[in-house]
Amino acid sequence: MARWEPGAAERLQQAALELFATRGFEQTTATEIARSVGLTERTFFRHFSDKREVLFHGQQVFARAFLDGVTGAPPDASPMEVVASGLRSASSFFPDERRASSRLRQSVIDQNPALRERERHKLASVAKDVAAALRERGVDQTAATLAAESGATVFGIAFTQWIREDEQRSLADIAAEVLGELLALARQSAGAEKGASRSCSRTGAG
Amino acid sequence: MARWEPGAAERLQQAALELFATRGFEQTTATEIARSVGLTERTFFRHFSDKREVLFHGQQVFARAFLDGVTGAPPDASPMEVVASGLRSASSFFPDERRASSRLRQSVIDQNPALRERERHKLASVAKDVAAALRERGVDQTAATLAAESGATVFGIAFTQWIREDEQRSLADIAAEVLGELLALARQSAGAEKGASRSCSRTGAG
Repeated sequence: MARWEPGAAERLQQAALELFATRGFEQTTATEIARSVGLTERTFFRHFSDKREVLFHGQQVFARAFLDGVTGAPPDASPMEVVASGLRSASSFFPDERRASSRLRQSVIDQNPALRERERHKLASVAKDVAAALRERGVDQTAATLAAESGATVFGIAFTQWIREDEQRSLADIAAEVLGELLALARQSAGAEKGASRSCSRTGAG
Repeated sequence: MARWEPGAAERLQQAALELFATRGFEQTTATEIARSVGLTERTFFRHFSDKREVLFHGQQVFARAFLDGVTGAPPDASPMEVVASGLRSASSFFPDERRASSRLRQSVIDQNPALRERERHKLASVAKDVAAALRERGVDQTAATLAAESGATVFGIAFTQWIREDEQRSLADIAAEVLGELLALARQSAGAEKGASRSCSRTGAG
């Protein structure tokens, strides 16, 4: 059996991000990544199935964090409150120490259509899982899909903001703010549609 | 110059959909599509750059319809009202006569990851254009992105419902209802958050 390399996965990830960002994703091989931190190709493939996996390694953990927040919400929480709980939990997966490497990772992904696609697909599949979890809580299908997709939208916008160069707030704070802005937009529209006096009587589609 | 074939594009589209649905997208060639309606490969390529284009031919028109609704909304409309106007306009691109072929088209797309991806990408790029149009109306970037992405989400859910076998309502009606449900979900959450008169605000899906 190959010997254990302490922190090998983390070292490989950091090296990969830097090489991808400077040389380009396509132009960097797994062997080069391994060699740049004094490890072998074999060690690389003990941790990652290919160089793409280095970028999407945390994906499962992120999806689970989002879902844990959803399933952990109080039983009487409204669908949007459940999603808010999912967002808080998912945000805890991105503490401020990760901001720099998340930024670097995003710059690599933004430059490569196939990686962008995989990233989009990831968020879409988290939304699907969240919708399923909401249905299990008794939410009807349309409401579950709407709430879950809104959660994915809010996460995407908040994440983009979080990795901006001048941003200092935590991802959880930004996500809460963006979700609040979505709710405000909806209220604003409802108010304009109906007029204040009818705000209690009509709640369906316009 | 090749002679003009009346209705050739429409005949090719219908034939392509049927061949894709019965034989599979990958297994069908442009030549076979053309021959099945007594046309030549050359005629096919006068109308479409490849067999994928047969499926995505209306894409530009759909995107323009959505944007026309956005730019045509009254100047004082709230972002969500602007999106509602875009949804109404986009829905007019799918009259009930198109339901059967839209259903067939979707069954082809659902079976092919690359086509699904192109479809997702299409909706994402419409959302991007709508967000840009909202910013031009003076809406700030986060609100514009949220409203536009919500519009894309609502359209996707409404369209999926519209092509169900047992569905009779128009796409415009379904889209208005789904948007209304999103607004109700947001109000419900806002009410619970603020503790303001839950009996008024909790009326959405449960």
